Amino acid sequence: MQQKIINTRDLAFQLYELHDVEQVLRFERYSEHNRETLQAALDLALKVAAEEFAPHARLVDEEEPTFENGRVEMRPEVRKALDVLKGTGLMAASQNYKRGGMQLPAAVAQMCVGLLKGANVGTQGYAGLTIAAANLILAHGSEEQKTRYADHMLAGRFFGTMCLTEPHAGSSLGDLRTRAEPQPDGSYRLFGNKIYISGGDHELSENIIHMVLARLPDAPPGVKGISLFLVPKILVNEDGSLGERNDVALAGLIHKMGYRGTTSTMLNFGEQQGAVGYLVGKPHQGLAAMFHMMNEARIGVGLGSVMLGYTGYLHALEYARERRQGRPIGEKDPSSPQVPLIRHADIRRMLLAQKAYVEGGLALCLQGAMLVDEKKFAETGEKRELAAGLLDLLTPVIKSWPSRYCLEANSLAIQVHGGYGYTREYPVEQFYRDNRLNPIHEGTHGIQGLDLLGRKVSMADGRFYRELMHRIEATIGEARAHSRLAASAERLEQAARAMAGATEAINAVKASGDKEKALANATLYLDAFGQVVVGWLWLRQGLKAVAGLGSSDSQDNAFYEGKLRACEYFARYELPGVVSAAELLNAVDETALSMADEAF
Amino acid sequence: MQQKIINTRDLAFQLYELHDVEQVLRFERYSEHNRETLQAALDLALKVAAEEFAPHARLVDEEEPTFENGRVEMRPEVRKALDVLKGTGLMAASQNYKRGGMQLPAAVAQMCVGLLKGANVGTQGYAGLTIAAANLILAHGSEEQKTRYADHMLAGRFFGTMCLTEPHAGSSLGDLRTRAEPQPDGSYRLFGNKIYISGGDHELSENIIHMVLARLPDAPPGVKGISLFLVPKILVNEDGSLGERNDVALAGLIHKMGYRGTTSTMLNFGEQQGAVGYLVGKPHQGLAAMFHMMNEARIGVGLGSVMLGYTGYLHALEYARERRQGRPIGEKDPSSPQVPLIRHADIRRMLLAQKAYVEGGLALCLQGAMLVDEKKFAETGEKRELAAGLLDLLTPVIKSWPSRYCLEANSLAIQVHGGYGYTREYPVEQFYRDNRLNPIHEGTHGIQGLDLLGRKVSMADGRFYRELMHRIEATIGEARAHSRLAASAERLEQAARAMAGATEAINAVKASGDKEKALANATLYLDAFGQVVVGWLWLRQGLKAVAGLGSSDSQDNAFYEGKLRACEYFARYELPGVVSAAELLNAVDETALSMADEAF
Repeated sequence: MQQKIINTRDLAFQLYELHDVEQVLRFERYSEHNRETLQAALDLALKVAAEEFAPHARLVDEEEPTFENGRVEMRPEVRKALDVLKGTGLMAASQNYKRGGMQLPAAVAQMCVGLLKGANVGTQGYAGLTIAAANLILAHGSEEQKTRYADHMLAGRFFGTMCLTEPHAGSSLGDLRTRAEPQPDGSYRLFGNKIYISGGDHELSENIIHMVLARLPDAPPGVKGISLFLVPKILVNEDGSLGERNDVALAGLIHKMGYRGTTSTMLNFGEQQGAVGYLVGKPHQGLAAMFHMMNEARIGVGLGSVMLGYTGYLHALEYARERRQGRPIGEKDPSSPQVPLIRHADIRRMLLAQKAYVEGGLALCLQGAMLVDEKKFAETGEKRELAAGLLDLLTPVIKSWPSRYCLEANSLAIQVHGGYGYTREYPVEQFYRDNRLNPIHEGTHGIQGLDLLGRKVSMADGRFYRELMHRIEATIGEARAHSRLAASAERLEQAARAMAGATEAINAVKASGDKEKALANATLYLDAFGQVVVGWLWLRQGLKAVAGLGSSDSQDNAFYEGKLRACEYFARYELPGVVSAAELLNAVDETALSMADEAF
Repeated sequence: MQQKIINTRDLAFQLYELHDVEQVLRFERYSEHNRETLQAALDLALKVAAEEFAPHARLVDEEEPTFENGRVEMRPEVRKALDVLKGTGLMAASQNYKRGGMQLPAAVAQMCVGLLKGANVGTQGYAGLTIAAANLILAHGSEEQKTRYADHMLAGRFFGTMCLTEPHAGSSLGDLRTRAEPQPDGSYRLFGNKIYISGGDHELSENIIHMVLARLPDAPPGVKGISLFLVPKILVNEDGSLGERNDVALAGLIHKMGYRGTTSTMLNFGEQQGAVGYLVGKPHQGLAAMFHMMNEARIGVGLGSVMLGYTGYLHALEYARERRQGRPIGEKDPSSPQVPLIRHADIRRMLLAQKAYVEGGLALCLQGAMLVDEKKFAETGEKRELAAGLLDLLTPVIKSWPSRYCLEANSLAIQVHGGYGYTREYPVEQFYRDNRLNPIHEGTHGIQGLDLLGRKVSMADGRFYRELMHRIEATIGEARAHSRLAASAERLEQAARAMAGATEAINAVKASGDKEKALANATLYLDAFGQVVVGWLWLRQGLKAVAGLGSSDSQDNAFYEGKLRACEYFARYELPGVVSAAELLNAVDETALSMADEAF
């Protein structure tokens, strides 16, 4: 199978060597799995990704969905690919057997979806949203809601959406206005407008189940007055058959820079008699329910960003090996043959940077997924609490770090291609456009920074932050013993120490009461913090690589050598920037904050 | 005139306060100009830009030119805008009066084109290429070529192109294969294929004059065997009337990520009897002729990148002032009104970063343009030589710095807009796509880095590099005397010193003979060097701002305060990164260079 979605040797390294995903098989839930069954699921997902999703990725970008006669029209390849996916059962990869699922560990289930994202993020969108919406029902809905809706979603008969944003309230969810009026039969009628609803309308499934945030009449203002409703496009009868069309109307499509294969819609609820909806969970607890799934959703966004970066890297690498262009710097004979691009120093630097970003990002997302299982299933309450806290702490990093650095990887992939990279005749420009969404949706960089610095670092009195730092120090200690890693360990220690100092300085300002000033550079804090975390994951990869070197397999040796180079690259080229960023953070600067509005 | 192309107060500051463009009016060539005539040209260009170019910028992106029945079809607005432009005489803004020009100083002439770029880079492309091609003929062509072709180009009757790249040889011009066979009448017949020819075909003008690099039969291999030819699409009779169609065929259009309004074409020369061409300048001197104009062309690319960043900033600023979203960090009452985006710290940081990038970039490009005039007209040979050397040194920075940092400004403008910024309903995503071309064409970052570190820094035994450093030191010395600037001066000194150390270390490796290793991180050197240069230009802007503060005009005071904040931002947020980059450069690292190919 020819594919440029992932280096399968690296995926195996990350899952089985770095994160030792087999350790979660000790949990009862995974007792029927072994490495072979995990690998079989991944192989299946990769096959579907490469054969059904990747071939039409450009097509759905060039011919994006259109809105015609009240219907969404799109390329038929999308439905075909999704039908194949439905048939594999992979949409329920993470679900319990009794719901028709595969009961796969989080890291493997996330990765199955991630492979689809790397192949064709547009087509994958419909499946990914459906899985997310079904998860929400399974976590907070009634048994009846699970049976009548979620099961059909996981089987692919119904698709799903998440309806949060309204035109006047983007990130500010507390300001949303959609209202839900209680009906005598216990249902609700919804009235309001939603925007940026991905997969909000299409003809890919029998029905669409919208998960909608709205306010009850007695709701308190702000985020404490938001409830979650299930609103089907077509009402569903008790026996699962379809009833009447609900009062949900497609008001229009939004046209995006990338991610064009997934419709982004404006939906009007209740233009007539009101859209019939059903409360999911408790009144006014809607945001909490939505955020309950947020860690996993944000791992999904981070991983999507990684996979776009990853496929870009593999395309750039192949191009650099095949395309002949120019001569080595010392070569004065113009009639000597041109050499492959990969022989040029700057091309090598750009390739190694991409490798460091995308493999580092993959390690980060899988780390998050490992914590998801530890949080749910670890043997003791203490262990579960610790995993939950670490996951909460890392979530803003997992969401945001890849969406900066793997987007940068996509830019470097364009640069390796030169002029060709800028054309739509090559795929890398699309990856770049697609990936530019990721710093925005599911919480912008700004929102993630406030989450990390304003909440996560100091939650539980800083316990989880300190635990992470201890783990980083432990890795540093271990790495020091290896001559090949000692210098990288030293650099990571400098970076981590500088950030610890900055954290202390910021916390002092926060304690003094000036929270606005303390958080003014939260986005930069998020970035530098992420660099330390990924530096740690690279050092851990370095440790595994040192252990793997000396294999009798020359390909394997080259692979481990590549890991060590990328670890060194990260320590030498990326971590020093953390030290200077930490100095700025340490000063708790307010240059922009205190500037007069009219001076801009 | 409502426009979001430039802050006219800033443009006046940069031209008349920072760079004192009036000083070039002392040169004979500009003796008939005064500030009013310069400003009249700029006002005219801005009017044309805002009224004729900006309104259809999105349209030519959405409906890019198509290739139908052997012809290029495009939106009629393009021709209409270019017809207005032709009528203004601005296409000859920099030319001598006797050629129908305005004889404007380089900074003003560049800026007139720059305003068009900020308004609509796609439509501007046709005019910009025509000016460049005409300049080439005027600099190297015969009197007859000037009269028969260049004059008609500057009048807008003919348009022009530059035909360098061939499919098998991108940046490696020495490998181009197009051949030119001498004919008994002194003309040549050309045979070969060119790619990425912007404006290579269209119906916007009566004729298209291609400036083509090709090889004579006796040409030595490599860059020393390239000659320059003038190849009209339609042959031109002695009286200026059009003759037969030449053997130049449009083979197809290339579809790009951005810059879609300008056709990018593949052209076949000599599919039949050979394309009639005329030698411009001397045999085998074609590349030298082309590069003779390179400094100015590269200022044009840099300025184009700045102007895309600049318009993005102005759009983001307006949006941030108008859009209400969320509440201040301390505000707990969810029923309090939402505040404008600009009240949020992270939005302010992103706005100030954009301001620092785009106004810093503008100062950089205008600095280059000032040197163009000094180089040509300064009173003594020594002064002219010095200006020429400084311009050569700065050219790779002027080409590349804006195309990184003003592209980043475009990314921040998207981020300020949130989800809306990612949609094609708002203009900022297009600026980002358009600007992504600039790190590639007219020499990639990689090529510019090799130019700077491999040639420019050490040319004339490092004389011009030292001269630049002296000027930077002089500004630092001056700024130290002002309490508001002393800390920024200190940071610039640290950065400049660190880069001086790195330069020395790299030169030592180069001297030892390992040129490949010495240049392995040339792109990073280019970037850090550029940061020092722009830091210098910000400190100079700070000096002018300190002088301007205390004005009785409160708007003026706010403007100068904004300049000081941007200067401080640059020193605090950008320059520290130079110090850590310089440490890496100082180590002359070869992590990527010496890595085995198979380890990627």
